[in-house]
Amino acid sequence: MIKIIGVGKIKDKALVSLINEYLKRLQPYNKIEVIEVNDIMTNANNSLLQNIEVLNKEASNVIGKIKDNEFVILLDLHGKSLTSENLAKKIDEIFTYKTSNITFVIGGSLGVGEQLVKRADFRWKLSDLTFTHQMTRVLILEQIYRSFKILANETYHK
Amino acid sequence: MIKIIGVGKIKDKALVSLINEYLKRLQPYNKIEVIEVNDIMTNANNSLLQNIEVLNKEASNVIGKIKDNEFVILLDLHGKSLTSENLAKKIDEIFTYKTSNITFVIGGSLGVGEQLVKRADFRWKLSDLTFTHQMTRVLILEQIYRSFKILANETYHK
Repeated sequence: MIKIIGVGKIKDKALVSLINEYLKRLQPYNKIEVIEVNDIMTNANNSLLQNIEVLNKEASNVIGKIKDNEFVILLDLHGKSLTSENLAKKIDEIFTYKTSNITFVIGGSLGVGEQLVKRADFRWKLSDLTFTHQMTRVLILEQIYRSFKILANETYHK
Repeated sequence: MIKIIGVGKIKDKALVSLINEYLKRLQPYNKIEVIEVNDIMTNANNSLLQNIEVLNKEASNVIGKIKDNEFVILLDLHGKSLTSENLAKKIDEIFTYKTSNITFVIGGSLGVGEQLVKRADFRWKLSDLTFTHQMTRVLILEQIYRSFKILANETYHK
């Protein structure tokens, strides 16, 4: 089972449509679930909260959605970068030797809280570039789909 | 003037919508143009062409769209990676010291031909990951937009 936990709701129709397309394409390969936790920053009542408090609240909300038997891959600009082939290999190794539950976590616009960094089993840097976290959700779905195609030895038109 | 040359037509409605959104957002900052050259691979009559021939043909088609005074940034898995801040700095330096014409080139599904590598003034690796070339077009538009926001000292909600 693949779980993706993101902070905030994606409203852009084009991004939602891309996400749904990849969720559909992934169905034959594995169970997949997307969980959206509350984006605290966009709640006006919280405008007095310090960034660090927001990060901590978001982190504990996310952690509440993670079970003990899940391998957590945290999207993190300070993490390690992977080629698409190495991501496929990593997913395969986790499924083979560790657990059949992989959870990808994408932080909100402020980044990721310390608690999340501690819970992470692997910290993954998508790129040196900063992408929007909405776009990140599309990108990792595409990379997970690509991984399954690689592992199934299926061609995938780039 | 920013020019983006891509191989092949983007048909996915969601991607087209994202591209148009960023083109609109970029308008206040600079002139921007997207040029699509023929994707030779999808033409069935060319199925007997060797990959290397396809690459060469695509490369010369792309080069036909580039003028001498353009600074060419080639998207290339063997290029150098940049942070978003460094991309902004690079764009600023080119505009200040070199030329007001920057052209980003995205190859087709087979990669980039040798001729293009030679013409490139800078080879840019977006990520260690392989993205679809359609998605790449969205990503670089978003990064160019982000660059202009950075250079204008404007906030940009990630």
